[in-house]
Amino acid sequence: MFTVSTEKAAYHHGKLRDALVRTALALLEESGVEALTLRAAARGAGVSAMAPYRHFADKADLLAAVAEQGYTDLRDRLARADTAADPRQALVEQGVAYVLFALERPALFRIMFGASLGSGLPPKPPPAGSAYSILATRVAGLVPEEQREAAVVAAWSLVHGLACLTVDGRLYHQAGAASPEALARQVTGLFAAGLPA
Amino acid sequence: MFTVSTEKAAYHHGKLRDALVRTALALLEESGVEALTLRAAARGAGVSAMAPYRHFADKADLLAAVAEQGYTDLRDRLARADTAADPRQALVEQGVAYVLFALERPALFRIMFGASLGSGLPPKPPPAGSAYSILATRVAGLVPEEQREAAVVAAWSLVHGLACLTVDGRLYHQAGAASPEALARQVTGLFAAGLPA
Repeated sequence: MFTVSTEKAAYHHGKLRDALVRTALALLEESGVEALTLRAAARGAGVSAMAPYRHFADKADLLAAVAEQGYTDLRDRLARADTAADPRQALVEQGVAYVLFALERPALFRIMFGASLGSGLPPKPPPAGSAYSILATRVAGLVPEEQREAAVVAAWSLVHGLACLTVDGRLYHQAGAASPEALARQVTGLFAAGLPA
Repeated sequence: MFTVSTEKAAYHHGKLRDALVRTALALLEESGVEALTLRAAARGAGVSAMAPYRHFADKADLLAAVAEQGYTDLRDRLARADTAADPRQALVEQGVAYVLFALERPALFRIMFGASLGSGLPPKPPPAGSAYSILATRVAGLVPEEQREAAVVAAWSLVHGLACLTVDGRLYHQAGAASPEALARQVTGLFAAGLPA
């Protein structure tokens, strides 16, 4: 079994890292986190088994890069959902988008919010333009200032908990909902309607 | 190194299983899930390395029993918290208790709600007297019938998401709160106040 190294021909400076992250995301959705190794990512990107080590020290390092891409994708998903003219409805659509993101990409969602990464994250505020700040901006426009921070934490907790419980198959009682999306719409709608005005 | 088997002297019928689960819970809090093996549980309970196999096929089987005990402990914790005369306040106290349970026993909480176990759970309703039903009863007393199921899912999602994000160190913005408990009280208070009456 030979592995032919083609990275010099295929990847210009900086592009190999992107290709490895893209390949890792695809492997993750197809085969789960166990199947995701630096070697498998190298094979998928068509480079030698050693090539990933130019960019990633180990699997955990690659997973951190995958999670970063996931945060960007989630942010983009929330931004695309945030189009309703009514601000409460826009918040509901963001919440539904959050839950659907988790349902459609469960392996990625678990890496983004799994305990293994969580404990290693630095305690710094999320950057402007992050998924958190898109949600926070919408809530801030709805709620009086003195309750704003609690309302943002509540909104994030609600959609995050709903996403986790849905992905992990915990919602036995589907509240008479036709689908996880319908349930997410009901639950976030109830929350948005109850926010202090 | 000899391991002296004492199980015949120490454990009557049915008691060995309980002792192994108790030992596993203690090991979990001390050293984390990686350190928890059938062998380590046997050593902690003072029985031979083979003795656990009378009750547990493998580590996953032991973890399932640990999670079961966790559900019972969480239910008891919520029931003890549910004492306020005002039903909204009782709901807040339940929510705070849920978050504190997760913070005080993070390794157990992750096993109870981790992806590895979640996907294997049968899709059946939680039994009466479970943590879920204690929360559901309190919500049901507050909310009109047609919104009840959505409100129960919302309440569970809120406290579960808050617990996960707190345990995983994701709540950078602590909403000006003095402690995780104070934040949980603010967030669940805001939610309870907004429930449809």
